[in-house]
Amino acid sequence: MADNKNKKAVIILSGGLDSTTCMGFAKEAGYELFPLTFDYGQRHRIELEKSRQVAEHYGVIDRYKVIKLDFLRNIGGSALTDEAIAVPKGTGVEQMDVEQAESEIPVTYVPGRNFMFLAIATSYAEAVGAEAIYIGVNALDYSGYPDCRPEFIAKVEEVMALATKVGVEGKPISIETPLIALSKADIVREGVRMGVPYELTTSCYNGEEEACGECDSCVLRLKGFSEAGHTDPIPYHKHG
Amino acid sequence: MADNKNKKAVIILSGGLDSTTCMGFAKEAGYELFPLTFDYGQRHRIELEKSRQVAEHYGVIDRYKVIKLDFLRNIGGSALTDEAIAVPKGTGVEQMDVEQAESEIPVTYVPGRNFMFLAIATSYAEAVGAEAIYIGVNALDYSGYPDCRPEFIAKVEEVMALATKVGVEGKPISIETPLIALSKADIVREGVRMGVPYELTTSCYNGEEEACGECDSCVLRLKGFSEAGHTDPIPYHKHG
Repeated sequence: MADNKNKKAVIILSGGLDSTTCMGFAKEAGYELFPLTFDYGQRHRIELEKSRQVAEHYGVIDRYKVIKLDFLRNIGGSALTDEAIAVPKGTGVEQMDVEQAESEIPVTYVPGRNFMFLAIATSYAEAVGAEAIYIGVNALDYSGYPDCRPEFIAKVEEVMALATKVGVEGKPISIETPLIALSKADIVREGVRMGVPYELTTSCYNGEEEACGECDSCVLRLKGFSEAGHTDPIPYHKHG
Repeated sequence: MADNKNKKAVIILSGGLDSTTCMGFAKEAGYELFPLTFDYGQRHRIELEKSRQVAEHYGVIDRYKVIKLDFLRNIGGSALTDEAIAVPKGTGVEQMDVEQAESEIPVTYVPGRNFMFLAIATSYAEAVGAEAIYIGVNALDYSGYPDCRPEFIAKVEEVMALATKVGVEGKPISIETPLIALSKADIVREGVRMGVPYELTTSCYNGEEEACGECDSCVLRLKGFSEAGHTDPIPYHKHG
């Protein structure tokens, strides 16, 4: 790991469990951390505050960067940005197998979100001289989201090699996906081992200070902590 | 062309000669035009005003969209966004052959710019239901800019097919590059034929109301008009 000393990595940070665990992995790998947060008009605005707190925790608030991409807000089409579309509760995604889940793209899909995030992160990484970009996609995400699949990530790396000066010069920026093959329980186990500040994160699609405990995202998170044998440190507002 | 009726295209519009010619091509192909302009902290701020005037000319000012991406401004690394780097004059790029030019990436390179633009345009296109994205790259651009080369564009299309819901469903958004094989003179000829409002465009890297006539971009533009046998309708401030 020592060979990453003085090397820089851009971490796409949402303030959720997965991306915050990526901060832990990148730190453990010895990188200087450059967290990059996107404000894409998501309803769960609390993510922005959480991501800032995570950057503070890791001592890199001076390098914390938020990029506003709220043009999707007024266009809509996703439950994550469009207030007219309800966030689904209990769709049972946590019980689906991958094949089942792949057949349905959730309403929480934001068009080509990770593609935008990675393209912007590429430009930022090249500008600051970073060699790697961390993104917290994992097996559960690509149940349904086309831009989380491993073949998508691999193809973006090919584009990055062609799109950048460093790529053309033979030192392309890499995309690191340390969570890609992990279950939520594995992610929690690794994160707890690395001291990731889960108390500062939020995963709830509804974006309130207290997580709902009922949306797909909360259900997956709680299941992950439970299977890992840990207690989720954030408060939940449980109905009935 | 009638089969593009009621079909939509996103046009990446800078207010320069090339992208404005793309508006002409997309209109001629029968598309509803969705111009998309990026404010990436470019020194030539006048581009933004010009792109707005072009959108007005085509009667689509209500669909004109500017996306702010000025995070590169404070990072620098390119003469187009960093005031500490001088825009070169008379580097003779217009006399280079492609092989010569490819060996040198100009200081006016903005890291992965077209990659970002295309990724954001993809998201926007999917959100508004557009089937095509027009981008004004051409043979002269890829003298030096890695993210203008045809193999880059082809690879981005592959990513788009994987990154989007429409792609996964078998109707990927296409990237249209009508200028890719054209010389500047060919572009001007085609544009004049289609009534493209070149009087509203600017190409000068120095970004003043009156074009300098001396930077690489002005020199290429003037040569293009001259070879096409047309007079460039914009004013030039010629030194000595």
